Amino acid sequence: MEQLNPKPVHSSPLTPLGFLDRAATVYGDCTSIIYNNMSYTWSLTHRRCLQLASSLSSLGIKRGHVVSVLSPNIPAMYELHFAVPMSGAVLNNISTRLNARTVSILLRHSESKLVFVDSLSSSLILESLSLFPPHVPPPRLVLITDDAFEATPNQPRDFHDTYEEFVSKGDPGFNWIQPKSDWDPMVLNYTSGTTSSPKGVVHCHRSIFITTLDSLVDWSVPKEPVYLWTLPMFHSNGWTYPWAMAAVGGTNICFRKIDAPTIYGLIDKHGVTHMCAAPVVLNMLSNFNRTDPLKNPVHILTGGAPPPASILSRTESLGFLVSHGYGLTETGGVTISCAWKSKWNLLPATERARLKSRQGVRTAGVTEVDVVDPESGLSVKRDGSSLGEIVLRGGCVMLGYFKDPIGTNKCLKENGWFYTGDVGVMHPDGYIEIKDRSKDIIISGGVNISSVEVETVLYTNPAVDEAAVVARPDEYWGETPCGFVKLKDGLDRKPKEREIMEYCRAKLPHYMVPKTVVFMEELPKSSTGKIQKHVLREKAKAMGPLTGKAMGSLTDSRL
Amino acid sequence: MEQLNPKPVHSSPLTPLGFLDRAATVYGDCTSIIYNNMSYTWSLTHRRCLQLASSLSSLGIKRGHVVSVLSPNIPAMYELHFAVPMSGAVLNNISTRLNARTVSILLRHSESKLVFVDSLSSSLILESLSLFPPHVPPPRLVLITDDAFEATPNQPRDFHDTYEEFVSKGDPGFNWIQPKSDWDPMVLNYTSGTTSSPKGVVHCHRSIFITTLDSLVDWSVPKEPVYLWTLPMFHSNGWTYPWAMAAVGGTNICFRKIDAPTIYGLIDKHGVTHMCAAPVVLNMLSNFNRTDPLKNPVHILTGGAPPPASILSRTESLGFLVSHGYGLTETGGVTISCAWKSKWNLLPATERARLKSRQGVRTAGVTEVDVVDPESGLSVKRDGSSLGEIVLRGGCVMLGYFKDPIGTNKCLKENGWFYTGDVGVMHPDGYIEIKDRSKDIIISGGVNISSVEVETVLYTNPAVDEAAVVARPDEYWGETPCGFVKLKDGLDRKPKEREIMEYCRAKLPHYMVPKTVVFMEELPKSSTGKIQKHVLREKAKAMGPLTGKAMGSLTDSRL
Repeated sequence: MEQLNPKPVHSSPLTPLGFLDRAATVYGDCTSIIYNNMSYTWSLTHRRCLQLASSLSSLGIKRGHVVSVLSPNIPAMYELHFAVPMSGAVLNNISTRLNARTVSILLRHSESKLVFVDSLSSSLILESLSLFPPHVPPPRLVLITDDAFEATPNQPRDFHDTYEEFVSKGDPGFNWIQPKSDWDPMVLNYTSGTTSSPKGVVHCHRSIFITTLDSLVDWSVPKEPVYLWTLPMFHSNGWTYPWAMAAVGGTNICFRKIDAPTIYGLIDKHGVTHMCAAPVVLNMLSNFNRTDPLKNPVHILTGGAPPPASILSRTESLGFLVSHGYGLTETGGVTISCAWKSKWNLLPATERARLKSRQGVRTAGVTEVDVVDPESGLSVKRDGSSLGEIVLRGGCVMLGYFKDPIGTNKCLKENGWFYTGDVGVMHPDGYIEIKDRSKDIIISGGVNISSVEVETVLYTNPAVDEAAVVARPDEYWGETPCGFVKLKDGLDRKPKEREIMEYCRAKLPHYMVPKTVVFMEELPKSSTGKIQKHVLREKAKAMGPLTGKAMGSLTDSRL
Repeated sequence: MEQLNPKPVHSSPLTPLGFLDRAATVYGDCTSIIYNNMSYTWSLTHRRCLQLASSLSSLGIKRGHVVSVLSPNIPAMYELHFAVPMSGAVLNNISTRLNARTVSILLRHSESKLVFVDSLSSSLILESLSLFPPHVPPPRLVLITDDAFEATPNQPRDFHDTYEEFVSKGDPGFNWIQPKSDWDPMVLNYTSGTTSSPKGVVHCHRSIFITTLDSLVDWSVPKEPVYLWTLPMFHSNGWTYPWAMAAVGGTNICFRKIDAPTIYGLIDKHGVTHMCAAPVVLNMLSNFNRTDPLKNPVHILTGGAPPPASILSRTESLGFLVSHGYGLTETGGVTISCAWKSKWNLLPATERARLKSRQGVRTAGVTEVDVVDPESGLSVKRDGSSLGEIVLRGGCVMLGYFKDPIGTNKCLKENGWFYTGDVGVMHPDGYIEIKDRSKDIIISGGVNISSVEVETVLYTNPAVDEAAVVARPDEYWGETPCGFVKLKDGLDRKPKEREIMEYCRAKLPHYMVPKTVVFMEELPKSSTGKIQKHVLREKAKAMGPLTGKAMGSLTDSRL
């Protein structure tokens, strides 16, 4: 058997880019993208991507160069997920919600050669480039104009090309640049919450190929789905769904305005079958005043935070079929998912919601997942309560952080595991439930409190719209939970802080009850809609430590 | 980017074996296998496979050793698809329909250390071992007894263990042997038609992993399907579906007797949703006198020969949804499939059948497929008529033939393509249609005749049950087509040879009409139900060359 070594014929590098060539053959005259009143076919999308890749090549973009994109979910954004790596370059999506200073840092860190910029982000990019030191050459700029959108920028002269010029200059017969090996870098994604030292996650072609096929199997996506782009593609490349849609010949519904009337309108108009959605979108859909059920069921894949029971029951009664998954930018897409068993359909709604709120089990394409004691590296008990760090290994894991070997080695450990920084438990049935980010754990009197568990209780309060819990310094306990709460609009009577605490006290061990409750008009959010706990943590710290007296009445119940 | 090299955490070898660990977690108490009145859960199947792997290890079976199996589709056969490679060994399925001489040759060629033998094949294995030369040590034998089956062998003393002893001796806590790299060999399959020099196809773990996920995506297999095992697992490992069923938590319906009443009975009893089937089975199902449609639709994946229109319309009217794919043992599973477009559903039945009879396009996981001129290596015209050899490349392609570097290099060419030996055309829409095996092409007066095209016409004759066309030597033309025909049972009047020729003449260019027609009671078939053209070719040769006179009347129409 030793003679049977890899040869080029079977070791041609795994890459999702070929899915587009295939889609052009199989689904050539089917719709690839719909955006407002425009619609594209797969053969047109294929041709345009080859033209774009060709234009990039003509400009001198080479294998391994970084090309950035600053855009919401419009057709250009979809095309660039193929076109940029087809030129050999590494695709670097940047969130349009970042500020100029951060964008400037990321562009310099990535040494980006060229940036495609949506017209609405034109001021942002110009301001970021103005922050470049004089000796650093700025990247070339290509402006994505949008006929369907009114606000064209008034600084077109600051841009080298417009997107459509760029497309039309390219050769549709271009031979796209294939990766030389499975391990060639393909995408670079900066994770949120990076201001001082950017963390640039690099995935190779093999990783994206595996995660894309794996995700399609895991979500049982059929052929020719109609996919609504609510999840920003700049967020972890839309969990690999740009490439997945080419593999199954789906129709991508692109749009800008993420609100409930728009989403419901597009679902009804185009017969949407699938969408990925952050919790905030699920929340939005369930709070919207819609009573008539969807004409056809819509599959929603959500992640980031478990869907609360009330939201699940409201959306499911309208005809949404909600799946719950977990992944990180470092794992490319969904790598743990709450694999549903048909027999669970017979359970009562609250029990179904409890089961569905768990992150679940590894997807089939992931080698292994575990919850371990970070000190010893040993698996925690499968008891649903022993906290440990979630670790995994498999082809989905990033190559590493760009220009950050120390950061890379910190989480891609020599023992062969990726340490996620997420804290969870393993249930007796082998399903994992995340309890917190390790840095969000509140350590109170030596006991670990999961901020997520406290938040879950806050969310069950009918007056609460959004909630986040962080540690506040405490003179006696070290830290105690501090809850930030956004109340619902149009309440007859707004509850007082004390009432929120009492509500929690009826449902939680006393030591887990927030000792501080702060009402806010809006909770601070990241570009991907995640509540920014580090901002709240700063706020809680700025309040100063609680004094010993406030806790006196609670000491008895801590034991 | 250069610093970001592969590390163990993301380069843990791709293998489908982990699907079983996952199935035991997710679907532990769901049914994995049903056989007669027995049923297994995924957690039991998992445990038994670990025990088997452990027992193999205890016997000294090591990484890279070959372990053979001679069994129909019973539960043991399913288990061994995991258990053997979990011991580090290479799984070598052998068709139960081969003769003792061939089995003996294969066992010696593979240097098999141990053979699991179904009770019905016990005489076959003992006879094959008796043909071993005295100096060659025979493999150890494990007898699979089958309580559900009457015929237990009368030579149990010739076997070292029984299967159930072997299971029970093993340790269910065994740490199965993971491959060291993507390229570790996992299965060895001898292709049919091998008597003198066996061709042993070796696939690695990576190949099987990719093909399994790719096949699930391509056939859009949902979770928890009920899968009927009509396709023998010893035939190209059942097109990877043993592993695929673990990935989606399917229920495997195993059985021995492949006939229409049994198949319909199992479909009705267990609510079968999916089955792979050779053309002979599709034929069987459509000829069976069943009028009431299936309770639920059953997805059939067929390959080997395109489904004729009449069979398609009959099976589809009963509620079967037929997909058509193409693959070879050398490609592990289905690698070209007739990707269906929803708009084709609006076409008339004959047009749908014509489209479905094409082999189609590469699956998403395959890198590239083409039809090329074997001399120049250039793509043939996309005109649906220029013949060329089908070539492909991608992760699905075998590592090579075992102990046969010359045979390997002949088809895994240095230009990076696998030459399939199948002759086909590329249609203008990019779909491939196979016209023949290159060796089955009839060269008559310098013109290539596809035997399959002639057969297709013969099959449209209402009196014809089965047909095969091969070359017969011809004094003037070199070769002319010779048709072997099995007529249907119960015909009012049997057609004469001349009538069959006239029938063809009305539908084919004259030079393609069989100059010889031979009626047979049964056509010779291989163990996988394929008609054995090499046997017919010998028969045609034995008839001696046709004389010039017989063709005189046809010369005018050849030009």
